[in-house]
Amino acid sequence: MELRQVAEQILQEAIRAALPDAAVRRALQGRRFPGRVFLLAVGKAAWQMAATASALLGEAVAEGMVITKYGHVRGALPGLRLFEAGHPVPDENSVAATEAALAMTAGLCAEDTVLLLLSGGGSALFEKPLISLAELQCATDALLRSGADIVEMNTVRKRLSAVKGGRFAAHCLPARVLVVALSDVLGDPPDMIASGPACADPSSCAEARQIVARYALRLSKEARACLTVETPKSAENVETVICGSVRQLCRAAAESCRKLGFRPIVLTDRLCCNADDAGRFFASIAQTHDASAEPLAFIAGGETVVTVRGSGKGGRNQELALAAAAGLAGLANAGLFSIGSDGTDGPTDAAGGYVDGDTARLLAQRGISLRAALDNNDAYPALDACGGLIRTGPTGTNVNDLTVLLIGGAGK
Amino acid sequence: MELRQVAEQILQEAIRAALPDAAVRRALQGRRFPGRVFLLAVGKAAWQMAATASALLGEAVAEGMVITKYGHVRGALPGLRLFEAGHPVPDENSVAATEAALAMTAGLCAEDTVLLLLSGGGSALFEKPLISLAELQCATDALLRSGADIVEMNTVRKRLSAVKGGRFAAHCLPARVLVVALSDVLGDPPDMIASGPACADPSSCAEARQIVARYALRLSKEARACLTVETPKSAENVETVICGSVRQLCRAAAESCRKLGFRPIVLTDRLCCNADDAGRFFASIAQTHDASAEPLAFIAGGETVVTVRGSGKGGRNQELALAAAAGLAGLANAGLFSIGSDGTDGPTDAAGGYVDGDTARLLAQRGISLRAALDNNDAYPALDACGGLIRTGPTGTNVNDLTVLLIGGAGK
Repeated sequence: MELRQVAEQILQEAIRAALPDAAVRRALQGRRFPGRVFLLAVGKAAWQMAATASALLGEAVAEGMVITKYGHVRGALPGLRLFEAGHPVPDENSVAATEAALAMTAGLCAEDTVLLLLSGGGSALFEKPLISLAELQCATDALLRSGADIVEMNTVRKRLSAVKGGRFAAHCLPARVLVVALSDVLGDPPDMIASGPACADPSSCAEARQIVARYALRLSKEARACLTVETPKSAENVETVICGSVRQLCRAAAESCRKLGFRPIVLTDRLCCNADDAGRFFASIAQTHDASAEPLAFIAGGETVVTVRGSGKGGRNQELALAAAAGLAGLANAGLFSIGSDGTDGPTDAAGGYVDGDTARLLAQRGISLRAALDNNDAYPALDACGGLIRTGPTGTNVNDLTVLLIGGAGK
Repeated sequence: MELRQVAEQILQEAIRAALPDAAVRRALQGRRFPGRVFLLAVGKAAWQMAATASALLGEAVAEGMVITKYGHVRGALPGLRLFEAGHPVPDENSVAATEAALAMTAGLCAEDTVLLLLSGGGSALFEKPLISLAELQCATDALLRSGADIVEMNTVRKRLSAVKGGRFAAHCLPARVLVVALSDVLGDPPDMIASGPACADPSSCAEARQIVARYALRLSKEARACLTVETPKSAENVETVICGSVRQLCRAAAESCRKLGFRPIVLTDRLCCNADDAGRFFASIAQTHDASAEPLAFIAGGETVVTVRGSGKGGRNQELALAAAAGLAGLANAGLFSIGSDGTDGPTDAAGGYVDGDTARLLAQRGISLRAALDNNDAYPALDACGGLIRTGPTGTNVNDLTVLLIGGAGK
């Protein structure tokens, strides 16, 4: 089997194992709800999570809704209203859907339960800004381009929002809130998943102001005023269950590698450095082990960071893969893929990229400069030109990114 | 044993195993020289290599000299002239010593042999510029700060020099040149070690001009003219033996780890990404494996790159270590060291740095911002404040850098 086919098989199996169905079932099975249940599913995996929960709970759900990214609704769900909205930058539909969710959960009583099914992407999809939407979009965009990590981004966003940083849980009072979350944040801190709408906020206004200063973000007077109003520091009506994360994704990939004859070495499930340097690190590993007689698979899960320098098209997984291509050039036995488990990587229709020892040669043949593509954050067309894009479509889960370096076993 | 002590022991043993003595002896033993031998040792390991060679060859050496970095001469060597000069930026003493070497090797006959003992650092120490020294220093400094890698740097430097890129071998004609090289360049390309004074140059003027454009280097008319004169494309009077490299250093570290009860995992001997991202990658590995019951050692050899953003004091190993400290914060079982095998890291008196789960806390106690130190390339004082500097003095070898992440075995 060619390495490219091995890669496809591993990534398909890993994603399948990370689908939320079984995890949501485990989290809900055997639970009793004293009063009405209001189902609110938010995030890139919202449709899949809501489908499972609503099939399991049936009539117990009084009312429910799904808020997910454009293109992520996979069909009607009986009794649930379905909304699609903007991601990674929130739009009018994010706000309209959030208003509907706030209306659904207003005026509840203490016996009621809000079942909040959270997954990554929720920060943009579930939003009622305290400033104008235009300014929030602008600030979100600036944060995304600044190189700020997800923790820093959410520390600021929580304070510009009426629902983030525990404020949604406060809105639901006196009802209980049961959060079932699929984590796309490294280490699974509940306050960071979808910016923690139902989680006491450990971050402070002072930290938020430091981040604004660090990345030299321009904010209006209204926005600056928001950074002086503290978020809730307790959320006693809330219970949170983390039902899946990138750790499972890595474990599933390792299992799949083993089945295919590659000895898996899970380096980390917390990768968080720059995408291109991560790619170069992986290429260094490949150069050293390319002659290994034993087939090897080096695995990393996490979320790398892209600092936008150019105006090209790509995503962090595509950039990681393309950055690895230079170092893989000419290697006979090495191939690498990197994908977003949700099936989307940056503002593209690809889930990620695949590169191997031939990629650099193919690019040169087509007159594409690998270095220029990287300098311009333009990995998508480069990978497209050499058949290196991986397309899965929306997968139904969202537990961060997976990178696997395969060493095919020299002399086989 | 504390992890810090384990680290010290591993790095000492690895450096000892990488000393050039045995390697130089292996390279020279049994060789016959038909005529006179002129010994020229250049680089940070020059004294050590020359000491071994001259002890072995004795009277066969007609004349000889050593050109090494300031502070690296460790005593008189019978019959050899000793020069110290500037590194990483060449100075007047580099030029004067090189003139002496050119005089020693001028007018030789076909039976004579120039024994060229090369080690890293030679690019700066062995230099006769074709432009003014001031402009060469300025260009070298700009290249060092630009983020250009060693290959790019040498492609430019070869053309500004009367001795680099095979030009020294041409000068020695009709004599033979035997190069015994300790490699500090990843993958050991002979044309890159000390900028290849006795190696046909595979790089081209066109490439050099592209690099100048890529990093927006300002050059005088004289310097630009140098970039149009090609370097030698053959060197038939030359034989080259690579007698040691970072691969040995990694192997020795792995052996030492095993002896101390840590299972070694050599990730790469070709590490070449940004120092701070390499540090963050290692920290991600530590976060995932900190709870491992089995003691583990993740090992990388290579040469990371620092892009100078600030005006602080440090070196790439110190920066890598400090960048790892944030991610290691609070971990109970992880420690990391990174060192230059030559015993110097950047323009400092330290070989590198050690960090562990306590480092971030100690820094905070002392009022030092880890992030600010990294942003300002100011790792030296930060590590100094928390006892994290590693000082070995000049070691006598120079085979690049070694990074080891130790996971101490949880619950022991």
